[in-house]
Amino acid sequence: MKIVIAPDSFKGSISAKDICTSVKRGILRVFPNADVIEIPLADGGEGTMENMVYATNGSKRKVEVTGPLGHKVSAEYGVLGDNETVVIEMAQASGLTLLQEHERNPLVTTSFGTGELIKAALDEGYRKMIIGIGGSATNDGGMGMLKALGVKFHKKDGSQLSEGGASLKDLDRIDAAYLDPRVKESTIMIASDVTNPLCGSNGASAIFGPQKGATPEMVKALDEGLDNFSKIVHTQKSVDMRELIGGGAAGGLGATLITFLEAELHSGVQVIMEKLRFEDQIKDADLIITGEGRLDSQTLSGKLINGVSKMAGKHEIPIIALCGGLDIEISQLVQELGLLSAFSIAPGPCTLEEAMVQAADWISERVEAIMRIIKF
Amino acid sequence: MKIVIAPDSFKGSISAKDICTSVKRGILRVFPNADVIEIPLADGGEGTMENMVYATNGSKRKVEVTGPLGHKVSAEYGVLGDNETVVIEMAQASGLTLLQEHERNPLVTTSFGTGELIKAALDEGYRKMIIGIGGSATNDGGMGMLKALGVKFHKKDGSQLSEGGASLKDLDRIDAAYLDPRVKESTIMIASDVTNPLCGSNGASAIFGPQKGATPEMVKALDEGLDNFSKIVHTQKSVDMRELIGGGAAGGLGATLITFLEAELHSGVQVIMEKLRFEDQIKDADLIITGEGRLDSQTLSGKLINGVSKMAGKHEIPIIALCGGLDIEISQLVQELGLLSAFSIAPGPCTLEEAMVQAADWISERVEAIMRIIKF
Repeated sequence: MKIVIAPDSFKGSISAKDICTSVKRGILRVFPNADVIEIPLADGGEGTMENMVYATNGSKRKVEVTGPLGHKVSAEYGVLGDNETVVIEMAQASGLTLLQEHERNPLVTTSFGTGELIKAALDEGYRKMIIGIGGSATNDGGMGMLKALGVKFHKKDGSQLSEGGASLKDLDRIDAAYLDPRVKESTIMIASDVTNPLCGSNGASAIFGPQKGATPEMVKALDEGLDNFSKIVHTQKSVDMRELIGGGAAGGLGATLITFLEAELHSGVQVIMEKLRFEDQIKDADLIITGEGRLDSQTLSGKLINGVSKMAGKHEIPIIALCGGLDIEISQLVQELGLLSAFSIAPGPCTLEEAMVQAADWISERVEAIMRIIKF
Repeated sequence: MKIVIAPDSFKGSISAKDICTSVKRGILRVFPNADVIEIPLADGGEGTMENMVYATNGSKRKVEVTGPLGHKVSAEYGVLGDNETVVIEMAQASGLTLLQEHERNPLVTTSFGTGELIKAALDEGYRKMIIGIGGSATNDGGMGMLKALGVKFHKKDGSQLSEGGASLKDLDRIDAAYLDPRVKESTIMIASDVTNPLCGSNGASAIFGPQKGATPEMVKALDEGLDNFSKIVHTQKSVDMRELIGGGAAGGLGATLITFLEAELHSGVQVIMEKLRFEDQIKDADLIITGEGRLDSQTLSGKLINGVSKMAGKHEIPIIALCGGLDIEISQLVQELGLLSAFSIAPGPCTLEEAMVQAADWISERVEAIMRIIKF
């Protein structure tokens, strides 16, 4: 019996990797000889690097970089088991979780550290990169990242723009002559499922600004800054970043990576599944166990379980989904996602906090209960 | 595929009968042609009559009787499908649920209505009775019940004892000459798993008095009353009710039923399983689904799931248990009760109230999820 464990994290509770450990424990209690494959998944956001390193038996490199407010932070990037692809998680250098609630301010936060992470990987000789851009604290259109790689941002008077989304309105001219030449030799994939454009009512500032600390006035200023940025780029490079699907990801970093670093935008979970040779690993499996924090109507349109389900369907492998909270009918999950079945890990009435704290044990228990049924 | 559904009620939430309905719905969503047998169980307490009537395709009789505080209440007794056995639930006539919290007072509450129920059944010609004595509001040693059947309780001055446990201390003489003679023609089984004696620190007053509203002083007075009662009985009938196992059930009604009505005490769930021909009904089943409100360490020593499990084990039929809350490891339920597996119906973090209100739907969903696994 071969069982593949391929969950998302339960956000705020337990990582995909730890879920794999708990699920495996539950399986082995009932099927001690089962062949269990752990493939912790992610959607390009937090945990992406960690999971890919784990699943490919890769390694991590620690780098000191500039945090979103200019303080030094210790960040890591991952080197996959192929020893030629690195995985960079923007959140490690420029993420919201690096700030206190009151420090959130996309007028001044910078993506500089993300550029430093890219540079560090280039310095080590890597030319294949996957960049997960979820969880950013920034709305600077990737200006900081470009600066770290040698690009200069000038005001009309020739002086340099300061960090943060607020200053982009003063941008007059971009000098990309000193953009690190090794970028040209590199293949960069953005792992993200954001499809929002750079500007406008559905753009980076309007949609993601508020969670990064922007008031409605700040959203307006940030949007104008990105708009000015895109106009200058349009003039100088004949690319309209406002037209790019997903250009609004990570406060506009998406647009900049595509335009200046020739990065390609890929669905987060697809990139991860490809890199982890997901199809190869599951094709002879008897069962797949996936999961996410909540199974609800959003799961139906979400990418992760959908992705797992499509691949499993191709090989006719049944999928059982675990979750913290199940807020959709089983029959819908069966009909629309092709799941075999789904279970919450909750052992009874409990608070969200209890569920978050005890998830690891509860997962093992629930999986054991399910495996006993399968054995019968 | 034959599946037997044999749960206890989830107390305070959903009856065993309604659980059967919900479980069946879940089964049929996955196995529309399954042969589903519903055997709602009980332990002699609330629901016993209802379940036995339902499972044997019997009927119910409505009778107006005296409630625990003397008000008239409408009670029902059941006639089983054999048309010769009646099931009387003490709680219907003399139960705690008939009183408001502030009305609870075992010094004055009477079991008279329970006697009236017995009399009504005798009037209708029934001579086989099962009496479920859980949930009583009384601690009168069954005096009220005996009075309703013609027994007289005298004080020293020849006057009659008033109702309630408080007056038993004044008992001087019992006159059973006018005890309804039809009682002698009857076979009475008490369905109860209480083993407490009539008196003392482990007796009716000390153990069950407080939940019926007794303060520590009242417990003392009630215990003295029962002790005096037993001494008088000992003198007149050469039976020491204090020696009877389970004599303390239902505020001493247990002792009186045994001593005056020659009733036999049987384990509640055993009586029910016998009457419902449980073994016959399950012996060719492929699966049994049982359940109770909480599965915890008390379940291991409890009678209901234990009883189901023993019978199922004899015929090697796997059992799945459902519950509101699961507070014990699956492996313990497997090892000590021989269950196949166990699941909470909770779809995620929730309050006890939500679980109680939504139990019916949640049970169907959970059973559907389990059945889908079985199908695979």
